[in-house]
Amino acid sequence: MGSKEKLNIPVLNEVLKPVASENKEFAVRFKNSMRSNVPLLDLVLRFILKQKGKKIRPLIVLLSSKIAGEINDRTYRGAVLVELLHTATLVHDDVVDEADKRRGFPSINKIWNNKVAVLVGDYLLSKGLLLSVTSKDFDFLETVSQTVKRMSEGELLQSKKTRKLDMDEETYFKVISDKTASLIETCCVVGGLSVTDNTQYIDALRSYGNSLGLAFQIIDDILDFEGNSKLFGKPIGGDIKEKKITLPLIYALQNVDKKESDSIRKMIKKGSNDKDVRFIIEFIERNNGIKMAQEKAEQLSERAKESIQVFPESESKVALESLVEFVVKREN
Amino acid sequence: MGSKEKLNIPVLNEVLKPVASENKEFAVRFKNSMRSNVPLLDLVLRFILKQKGKKIRPLIVLLSSKIAGEINDRTYRGAVLVELLHTATLVHDDVVDEADKRRGFPSINKIWNNKVAVLVGDYLLSKGLLLSVTSKDFDFLETVSQTVKRMSEGELLQSKKTRKLDMDEETYFKVISDKTASLIETCCVVGGLSVTDNTQYIDALRSYGNSLGLAFQIIDDILDFEGNSKLFGKPIGGDIKEKKITLPLIYALQNVDKKESDSIRKMIKKGSNDKDVRFIIEFIERNNGIKMAQEKAEQLSERAKESIQVFPESESKVALESLVEFVVKREN
Repeated sequence: MGSKEKLNIPVLNEVLKPVASENKEFAVRFKNSMRSNVPLLDLVLRFILKQKGKKIRPLIVLLSSKIAGEINDRTYRGAVLVELLHTATLVHDDVVDEADKRRGFPSINKIWNNKVAVLVGDYLLSKGLLLSVTSKDFDFLETVSQTVKRMSEGELLQSKKTRKLDMDEETYFKVISDKTASLIETCCVVGGLSVTDNTQYIDALRSYGNSLGLAFQIIDDILDFEGNSKLFGKPIGGDIKEKKITLPLIYALQNVDKKESDSIRKMIKKGSNDKDVRFIIEFIERNNGIKMAQEKAEQLSERAKESIQVFPESESKVALESLVEFVVKREN
Repeated sequence: MGSKEKLNIPVLNEVLKPVASENKEFAVRFKNSMRSNVPLLDLVLRFILKQKGKKIRPLIVLLSSKIAGEINDRTYRGAVLVELLHTATLVHDDVVDEADKRRGFPSINKIWNNKVAVLVGDYLLSKGLLLSVTSKDFDFLETVSQTVKRMSEGELLQSKKTRKLDMDEETYFKVISDKTASLIETCCVVGGLSVTDNTQYIDALRSYGNSLGLAFQIIDDILDFEGNSKLFGKPIGGDIKEKKITLPLIYALQNVDKKESDSIRKMIKKGSNDKDVRFIIEFIERNNGIKMAQEKAEQLSERAKESIQVFPESESKVALESLVEFVVKREN
């Protein structure tokens, strides 16, 4: 999971600049959508609002619409929709991960309980859908329902492979495409659809979102092996301890003989202590796992930038390009 | 919760009769919708299918459409939609209730874990929505999104009142209307919408569904105080132990002075053992709580039957009337 909850990279000024005022308008609308007449629900919603994620997804919606046309009411609804959906998945993730903390705050299931977390997640999801239904944004609904489906499928596929430890490169890409990239893709598509029906533009934005999302997740998985993740209280090698096999390890395992790869798998399977984790990270570095994964992320980031070359030059285009750069170069 | 998972009353032959063949067609379509290419997901879906609930909700969809017109493709999609949605809430309820069993089978969160249960629930929900989106059943989507929202609100409202023990009659009806009756209402509305745009018919069906749902939940709450519930492995007075204040207790508390009602609330608040539960049940019976709740359920069942008097006589009408009778007279 780590992934989804963390597309909260400090937003570069140049990424925000072309849509700074629109982003404020979004914030007001999102806040208004996080209200309820049910007191307990309202309390939880206020608690969530206080946490102030960086809200990168609605920002992607805004930029994806501005690159292709003029931001309008539908764009804002799309931005609110993706953020409601994202928030719903975060709240459900708390149950899933049995997380005690989220962005430095105690998690909802910790303060209240799993019941509240599951129900609030369901509520947020339905709230987003209702927003689209009542405004007749049926094109948004199609992409968003597909995304909710893909996100749960991706997580379940990873979960299965985690148990069996038989994750390969192809499956890894299927997992991260579904669990992480699908929502970024949806942000781009929803932003585009709100301003244009030019299919070349929509396809370009979808492709940008997919490549950006994949690159983001690969970097996230690399950072799990590196020290800086510690800033966020996430232990180094957390994925290995959870028996999650990610791209750097997949590449390293491809580069050694069966005997060596079997012994590494065995070590992970039995449950790794800190010493084992250090050993495995050294194994990955020695066998070029991190380097190869980094190269892959860079290829994808190039592909993302190429995707949007169909658009004329604009501040928004530069911003979307900077966002890609930032994602692959970030250190936490 | 107990409620929602248990609208699995043995279906009377006369209720099923007018739509027996259509019900078989529904079963085939539902089974087909419970498939996935993700192996773990497919495994869980097959496991769910094996449990064979009585599928009363799709039956209500079928009858509600046949009473108002001719069953068609949209009717079946509506029936599959409500059953997918219902199944999603059951799976999420398992997490919420930390249930170990469901219909005599181990629960999904018991065999797999909370993660799988939350994700499979999200998957089923999105699967249902996608079915409606891709078929452009936007009228279904509107009622269904509203229902998902109401169901989570109702549960959260009950949860809050459970902690504070300040449930009154008005709030009780708000809770059961949202958490239980809303889905039954939706079954009726979806069935109706699939065959007619006559608003008098749709309103009649909505009203029928609401009254039936309320009556159902009241009876469910009465049965919690009676022996027969034991058949389902639910302990007598389970709601009291969970500090849930339901209608029979609300009525009994209304019938005594403040001193006596405070002492009962205190007993519930501290956590009731079996002896306390017996004492409280006797208190409820002595103060007419069960009798008054039963009368309320009967009034609602009359109202349900009156609601559908706008329809000409038909086998389906008789079946919907029988269903009401059955709900208030059932003993488990």
